[in-house]
Amino acid sequence: MTSEIFPHNVQQTLDLVGIFVFALSGGLMAVRKNMDIFGICVLAEATALGGGVLRDLVIGALPVAAFTSFGYFPTPLVAGVVVFFLHPEVERITRAVMVLDAAGLGLFCVTGTIKAHTYGLGAIPSVACGMLTAAGGGVIRDLLAMEPPSLLRWDREIYAVPALVGSAVVAVLIGVGRLTPLYASLAAVVAFTMRMLALKYGWRAPRAWHRNGSRTSEE
Amino acid sequence: MTSEIFPHNVQQTLDLVGIFVFALSGGLMAVRKNMDIFGICVLAEATALGGGVLRDLVIGALPVAAFTSFGYFPTPLVAGVVVFFLHPEVERITRAVMVLDAAGLGLFCVTGTIKAHTYGLGAIPSVACGMLTAAGGGVIRDLLAMEPPSLLRWDREIYAVPALVGSAVVAVLIGVGRLTPLYASLAAVVAFTMRMLALKYGWRAPRAWHRNGSRTSEE
Amino acid sequence: MTSEIFPHNVQQTLDLVGIFVFALSGGLMAVRKNMDIFGICVLAEATALGGGVLRDLVIGALPVAAFTSFGYFPTPLVAGVVVFFLHPEVERITRAVMVLDAAGLGLFCVTGTIKAHTYGLGAIPSVACGMLTAAGGGVIRDLLAMEPPSLLRWDREIYAVPALVGSAVVAVLIGVGRLTPLYASLAAVVAFTMRMLALKYGWRAPRAWHRNGSRTSEE
Repeated sequence: MTSEIFPHNVQQTLDLVGIFVFALSGGLMAVRKNMDIFGICVLAEATALGGGVLRDLVIGALPVAAFTSFGYFPTPLVAGVVVFFLHPEVERITRAVMVLDAAGLGLFCVTGTIKAHTYGLGAIPSVACGMLTAAGGGVIRDLLAMEPPSLLRWDREIYAVPALVGSAVVAVLIGVGRLTPLYASLAAVVAFTMRMLALKYGWRAPRAWHRNGSRTSEE
Repeated sequence: MTSEIFPHNVQQTLDLVGIFVFALSGGLMAVRKNMDIFGICVLAEATALGGGVLRDLVIGALPVAAFTSFGYFPTPLVAGVVVFFLHPEVERITRAVMVLDAAGLGLFCVTGTIKAHTYGLGAIPSVACGMLTAAGGGVIRDLLAMEPPSLLRWDREIYAVPALVGSAVVAVLIGVGRLTPLYASLAAVVAFTMRMLALKYGWRAPRAWHRNGSRTSEE
Repeated sequence: MTSEIFPHNVQQTLDLVGIFVFALSGGLMAVRKNMDIFGICVLAEATALGGGVLRDLVIGALPVAAFTSFGYFPTPLVAGVVVFFLHPEVERITRAVMVLDAAGLGLFCVTGTIKAHTYGLGAIPSVACGMLTAAGGGVIRDLLAMEPPSLLRWDREIYAVPALVGSAVVAVLIGVGRLTPLYASLAAVVAFTMRMLALKYGWRAPRAWHRNGSRTSEE
């Protein structure tokens, strides 16, 4: 599959690490919502694989990779069990989890964009698929947990925008015929770095102009 | 694609106008929910393209048209930017937006029904796909904004029923072999008119019989 | 289609009974939420067919069976009309509905697992698809009704776990080459019995270890 930009073993390992970390965030949300072990595993699966499933559905890559690629489906179950037994310890290393989550964001926006391109999508839709891959699972997690999607909240550090930038870099690289493993890695690093800086400096996206609070439901 | 009932240029222009108007309603919901520019664009995209994406998924028209048809994906972004800068002005012309929204409803229930038919679905499922195309995006918009789907609320003027009627007219026209551009346009006009009358006269659908309020959660 | 484990007529009848009962639960939820006849029918459709639609989407069985198999789509509409006129009577036989619902759970986890296997999925993903078929519709119902998915709540009797067990039995039967109609029926009976016992004895799944309530939002 040409959506693999690294040697197969490396790509697979990176994918599974990214899936594991995304699954941790889903499992922790389930614990905070007081769900049982089953709910923890469902949210771990949905968070880790949801973005890729949405991408595969809209581009027509069926059956979805989540159910056919080695290790994709079992990995979130392992993360779910880890959270079930060790959630206070996992909460305590939230900082490390967020760093790894940012790395997963960088990885998946790049591989998602490439996969969409190999299925014949144009540059802009491929970028959208990159973002969907990286950020879609978190939206599904929040919907299942009945939380307003954190992705859409103005009071959270930007999450999808770094994925957008990483995806756009990949689309440009494809456009100019320079998509090498090295450059693809750099695109992932750009998205990762941007997300880390957003966390460090509290970067947020602007809200609509002329907002004076009169019509808002949350101010 | 035989789901085009009008000359290609006309069809494309109508599609993009409908998408733009649906996107405005998504963007305005995002502003009301105090989302940032990114959330505005996401809700604009989801509202404008969500119904067609759901239809394409269930009928197997992959990759989805939202990502492959010219202009489909960028148009909601333009609407999102318009809402971002000009939302008070857009709110002020809500009446005009609702008229255009009703026109989009009429257009998309017709084209959705035809597309499902060309993918081999029977009459009743094609009608369901017509409704899904016209009304599905609004449901996704409401879920992402954590609002009870307005489509399902008894205290809102009927929205999906006009789409149902328009779709059913198309299915009958297909059944009797008379689906011409003229008749298809008339089906769209029927749905549009019914929606406008529903808005004007406050038409609502009946609730379950014998409701005495004792078991309701919202009365 | 090899996902039919019984003679065609028997299978079809069982499917439609299962769909009808699932649709009743969707319609009753809509009545409790004070929705109109349209909302009742939409929730009946989504609850009855949603699980199978999700399964067909992820395995790539398109167009989805919900729109192509005889009687699948109209049956929930009949259930919706029944609920509309007779909901107090239907509420009164909730116990009978729950028994039939458990039977549907047993049936659909078995047929869902078999269908996923025939589309080339491995054992674990096939089990996941069996659960998705049996329990996915209920999650969609709860999301559309803005209720926390009852599937994910620790304070509800286990629902997906019986489906998991039934699906796993089927996967083992496939693995050892012994999937006969008799054994498949037994797998469905296992899931059904487990669900009935869970209801009778209030079986619940464990929550995360070391929960002391300090971080929970619902305790």
